[in-house]
Amino acid sequence: MNTKNMMVQEMVKPFLLQARYGIEKESQRVTLEGNLVRTDHPASVGSRSFHPYIQTDFSETQLELITPVTESVAEVLASLEAIHDVAQRSMPKDEMMWPFSMPPALPEKEEDIQIAKLENHADVLYRRYLAREYGKRKQMVSGIHFNFEYGLDLIKQLFLAQTEEASMENFKTRIYMKTARNFLRYRWLITYLFGASPLSEARYFDNADRPKEPVRSIRTSRYGYVNKPDVQVSYETLARYSEELAENVAQGRLSEEKEFYAPIRMRGGKKVADLFQTGIRYIELRNIDLNPFERVGISSDEIEFLHLFMLYLLWTEEKLSADEWVAEGNRISDAVSLERPTETTAYLAEGHAIFEEMLQMVDELELTGADLLKNYQRWLDHPEETLAARILALDEAKGQAAVALELGQQFYEQAWARPYQLAGFQEMELSTQNLLFDAIQKGIETEVLDRQDQFVKLQHKDHQELVKNGNMTSKDTYIAPLLMANKTVTKIVLARAGFHVPQGETFASIAEAQKAYPRFAQNAFVIKPKTTNYGLGITIFKGETALADYNAGLAIAFAEDDEVIIEEFLAGTEYRFFVINHQVKAVLLRTPANVIGDGKRSIEELVAEKNASPLRGINHRSPLEKIQLGELEQLMLKEQGLRIDSIPEKDQQVFLRENSNVSTGGDSIDVTDEMDESYKQLAIEAVNVLGASISGIDLIIPDKDKPYETAADYGIIEANFNPMMHMHIYPYIGKSRRLTTDVLRFLYPEMNI
Amino acid sequence: MNTKNMMVQEMVKPFLLQARYGIEKESQRVTLEGNLVRTDHPASVGSRSFHPYIQTDFSETQLELITPVTESVAEVLASLEAIHDVAQRSMPKDEMMWPFSMPPALPEKEEDIQIAKLENHADVLYRRYLAREYGKRKQMVSGIHFNFEYGLDLIKQLFLAQTEEASMENFKTRIYMKTARNFLRYRWLITYLFGASPLSEARYFDNADRPKEPVRSIRTSRYGYVNKPDVQVSYETLARYSEELAENVAQGRLSEEKEFYAPIRMRGGKKVADLFQTGIRYIELRNIDLNPFERVGISSDEIEFLHLFMLYLLWTEEKLSADEWVAEGNRISDAVSLERPTETTAYLAEGHAIFEEMLQMVDELELTGADLLKNYQRWLDHPEETLAARILALDEAKGQAAVALELGQQFYEQAWARPYQLAGFQEMELSTQNLLFDAIQKGIETEVLDRQDQFVKLQHKDHQELVKNGNMTSKDTYIAPLLMANKTVTKIVLARAGFHVPQGETFASIAEAQKAYPRFAQNAFVIKPKTTNYGLGITIFKGETALADYNAGLAIAFAEDDEVIIEEFLAGTEYRFFVINHQVKAVLLRTPANVIGDGKRSIEELVAEKNASPLRGINHRSPLEKIQLGELEQLMLKEQGLRIDSIPEKDQQVFLRENSNVSTGGDSIDVTDEMDESYKQLAIEAVNVLGASISGIDLIIPDKDKPYETAADYGIIEANFNPMMHMHIYPYIGKSRRLTTDVLRFLYPEMNI
Repeated sequence: MNTKNMMVQEMVKPFLLQARYGIEKESQRVTLEGNLVRTDHPASVGSRSFHPYIQTDFSETQLELITPVTESVAEVLASLEAIHDVAQRSMPKDEMMWPFSMPPALPEKEEDIQIAKLENHADVLYRRYLAREYGKRKQMVSGIHFNFEYGLDLIKQLFLAQTEEASMENFKTRIYMKTARNFLRYRWLITYLFGASPLSEARYFDNADRPKEPVRSIRTSRYGYVNKPDVQVSYETLARYSEELAENVAQGRLSEEKEFYAPIRMRGGKKVADLFQTGIRYIELRNIDLNPFERVGISSDEIEFLHLFMLYLLWTEEKLSADEWVAEGNRISDAVSLERPTETTAYLAEGHAIFEEMLQMVDELELTGADLLKNYQRWLDHPEETLAARILALDEAKGQAAVALELGQQFYEQAWARPYQLAGFQEMELSTQNLLFDAIQKGIETEVLDRQDQFVKLQHKDHQELVKNGNMTSKDTYIAPLLMANKTVTKIVLARAGFHVPQGETFASIAEAQKAYPRFAQNAFVIKPKTTNYGLGITIFKGETALADYNAGLAIAFAEDDEVIIEEFLAGTEYRFFVINHQVKAVLLRTPANVIGDGKRSIEELVAEKNASPLRGINHRSPLEKIQLGELEQLMLKEQGLRIDSIPEKDQQVFLRENSNVSTGGDSIDVTDEMDESYKQLAIEAVNVLGASISGIDLIIPDKDKPYETAADYGIIEANFNPMMHMHIYPYIGKSRRLTTDVLRFLYPEMNI
Repeated sequence: MNTKNMMVQEMVKPFLLQARYGIEKESQRVTLEGNLVRTDHPASVGSRSFHPYIQTDFSETQLELITPVTESVAEVLASLEAIHDVAQRSMPKDEMMWPFSMPPALPEKEEDIQIAKLENHADVLYRRYLAREYGKRKQMVSGIHFNFEYGLDLIKQLFLAQTEEASMENFKTRIYMKTARNFLRYRWLITYLFGASPLSEARYFDNADRPKEPVRSIRTSRYGYVNKPDVQVSYETLARYSEELAENVAQGRLSEEKEFYAPIRMRGGKKVADLFQTGIRYIELRNIDLNPFERVGISSDEIEFLHLFMLYLLWTEEKLSADEWVAEGNRISDAVSLERPTETTAYLAEGHAIFEEMLQMVDELELTGADLLKNYQRWLDHPEETLAARILALDEAKGQAAVALELGQQFYEQAWARPYQLAGFQEMELSTQNLLFDAIQKGIETEVLDRQDQFVKLQHKDHQELVKNGNMTSKDTYIAPLLMANKTVTKIVLARAGFHVPQGETFASIAEAQKAYPRFAQNAFVIKPKTTNYGLGITIFKGETALADYNAGLAIAFAEDDEVIIEEFLAGTEYRFFVINHQVKAVLLRTPANVIGDGKRSIEELVAEKNASPLRGINHRSPLEKIQLGELEQLMLKEQGLRIDSIPEKDQQVFLRENSNVSTGGDSIDVTDEMDESYKQLAIEAVNVLGASISGIDLIIPDKDKPYETAADYGIIEANFNPMMHMHIYPYIGKSRRLTTDVLRFLYPEMNI
């Protein structure tokens, strides 16, 4: 098959870069001092019997992180980043991931290496067999497995662009077999560029059979984790490959197929023989060392290069018979992996030839990536730029173990710096980031269907759920949130059911509202837009209100909505009750933006200090918002006879806002445990009356310690659909309430999360 | 009790006009020629065993329309208007309501007057008893019953403003008993002003005992429907009232309490004796004739007057002992009712005294209404302005029966002029008006919780449902409409489930979208905002698109939304499938705004003619929208080489729009019965996959007659939550599909609607 002729056709070109990717990444868990941990796989992570993202490899200490299949480099990296964050933050606070492929110093006694404690006994038995056959030490090495699939449209267009092969299924198989053979032939280039296991740590090698370190990659060399030399398989055709693999198992040279540690695997069915039914769906590249300079072990550039390399493998012609071609590749790969990293490779000329051919391909096929290729080509003449050489240089300066510790700690700190965010998804709402975190942690398959719209798909076995904005789910009816969105109707419904709600009226015009002045002026009342977000447009009057102030309040409210509510202002403290599935899972007190004086610093300085907390950010990217010093805050100070350069006395609390919304710099204080049970019951019953499953209901309560007796003991202000969750998860003061986990429990009762 | 002293207090004043109202209105059903109908109570109306709004009184031909209890005059009138519309439009097209209290000419044989065919046998037996005791003819008279309740806060404030009566319950009873006695004393004024039964028609009186017509009100006179003279009851106290009423029943003078035809009734429990438990909740005024000049039999001014009159009855002192006072009132009432309408009343002086006292009350209590009172007071000196006199004048000109026919037909035409609207609620969305119509018709209690927000409460027995915008209900989950609102995610979900959806991409910036030009330019595609209403911002390109046109399309779409979708344009015809509860209830073809030429008139003239249809309006107040001749339409004409003054040939169809939305003047054509079943099944399955219960799903189908076989036979464009219903109910061409009834069936399966 002349694949080049197919690839250059116009009908094929638009689809050339179409592909799907998946990454598996192994890492040893170590202490912050760099020693292999003695703890079990993290308990907070869902069961390894089904976990799609966080597994263990050979040993109990060896994490295996698995991304879902994605259709872009950005997505696969985002997923890996996220799973990495979840894994790191699910581990005890004194553990981190070892950034190198080669493990840290191993225990003196091999029995101290703990085989993964898997639930499936067959999995344990297999690991015990491996330990006997290869020794436990060799199993402790980590790497990246890169799963690659040519896009279906690409395969289809290539198929249409030829006439030689009539069967689409056979064509696809031939495409992948060619790719595999060429990969085996040219894979040395990957090792040259990205080999990153130049040195072993103590007790990795337990006998004299070891390379002369440093090398480019112990892991991909014959000293790495490879089968015994008598295990040989042909890649000429899928049939031969399958037969010979089966023969190896039949003869007892392999215990089962998966013991065949080839640098590439054809994937599709559960077993190789299934491939005749399923076809080859994708291929798995297994010869990639962890890039220790990347938190997740692989960079975007590496993936882009691998993608172009795959296209090149399809593009370039094979020059020998299948078996000879692969055997030649194996020889070269082993040789290159054992070269000294800082030395020029013996295959420099072939390396340049590959790059020249790749550049020509990129040019002919009008692909992007020429710059990236040229950059990597430069490494051929500058071996000191390869990963192995860079590690070696650092090793010479301070020792490989110290380097690993430094890099590991740096990545550890990155993962913990903003624990309320999830790497790869930081531009999404915090609640959704937290929900994704929890779902990944518990082993629920997640997929973001629309980032901008906060639309997430969850799946566990056959049970699928869609979630928008963190808590808009199938568990609520359509009408309940619409009811909550309408404050007037909410009040009618609650009042009729016997709940105490502030009396008020809705006005559709400013003129009409102005006429109502005499009815409200004498008592405390609040003017607010009928629909409000973040407390915008709300003014509170505490009694004896002047007409001008009243009219000003109306103007502010009508600027936010066509309809405005004026209602009785209830004295007392407002609490947010987060109700889900007939339970109060959190109660929060929100206090308006404020600072507490120290007798020395000005209000401006105190605000700056408070704003420096990593919990405070802007535009809802953090659990709390920075306190502003805008017009409203300065007005509020002025009313208290203060300015931003005033210096409050020690312990004097100065408020900068009337409203207590977290979104305008307010503090959030968890009072779930302190709130009298009777009010929680009230909140639950009110949410029931509204027919809602998830609601943030706001109650005014004069005394939260005194059990509810009469209507005077509380008033319901409003019920919020899609209530903020992150302010409960990361309160300014008090206990964190992980509401996103409650959402998952509600959605997946069968999982017993 | 000095009620005047209580009423003038500041604490009472803000609540003086607080009240609740309910109206019952009887009407005889007649043919359009004015003859009593021979048909049964309309079958389309829900069962009389529970119907809260539409009942029958004595005879099968006598409708009784009952409003819910409301808190304002506007609301009670709106309800009555609506129920009136429903009743009229539920009757056969050749029936209408007789506008007078006095019935039309009655059958010669009394047996031809059909007693109401009620399900409850006791109700039938009671009517048979009445027929025996009073004769059927007298039962054929109609009137208004006006239920009035002083506001609870008003009663409470009055109670707090006195010290004489310590029990709130007793106080309330005394308030209502005083009102009742004064009402009985002064009710003649109501008869003077609003008496409207001056003349009887043929065979109403079947013996010589009849008044000398014309009078002010046959109905309220001793010749009306009154008890025999031996039935007497004291109003001194509730206890005496109750005892004596019971005694009348015990002695057989009345068959049961409800046979006591007093001009006022104390209401609260089911029986009078219950009032000791329940207290008097409200009073029922029964002496109000139908105002034949008002479609609903009573005017807003009459109700306002009655309200002030009730306050006056509380305000003014009684001047004799209870029994003497009532007896005096009865005498005067009978006398006034039998006066000649055009004559000055014998009680002119007392009439003026009452008005003067009322005006003084209004002044002292700072109430509105003085103008209204002065206007009615004028009628004392101008008896020709009273209702009875006005009827008489018309009678003299053309005969009362002809007047009744004329008025009845006028009201009939009003009810049928815009059958898609519901009187009293015309400013609401058409779908909600239709839903309210159906609910009232079927006997589901309705309440509009928020007119502007289209928020409606429905209730049947204990089963309550909230509905917004006609079909947003508890039957859908929260997430399903959110999913449908996101076209991108909808397509992902549908495509994964194996449905054919047009391939496309979403862009968040105009620059990014511009870059995609080469990928779309060669084939047919559509550019549209991610979220769109009424088809705004959509441009269709049918292939070989120029870059400038492409960019213009992007600008139009990005003006409507931050995100824009570009997708494959599927050739074929677009159909809207309305799916509810796993059934396709309507399929609609929408054609773009167009006119069909006659070879004579210009496009402008043809448009004007088409727009003259009562089905076409503006701003969605009618089922179809008027065709505009704006920029877009003129551009479209220009592309066809036409102008608005061009004269199309006979039968030439000229399109004025690309898009087929009804909202831009398109035509709606019902094709439910013509659509092949296989596509209906597809629509149902797709809606199931989206997890929705109610959806308007748009399919492109090249051939609706050819059963679905492959993906090429259809494509799903989008699914709409809250799909328009009125375009199916009132299509331009084809059969009406009453989807609002389907919504009610879905919500209330137990009712077997």
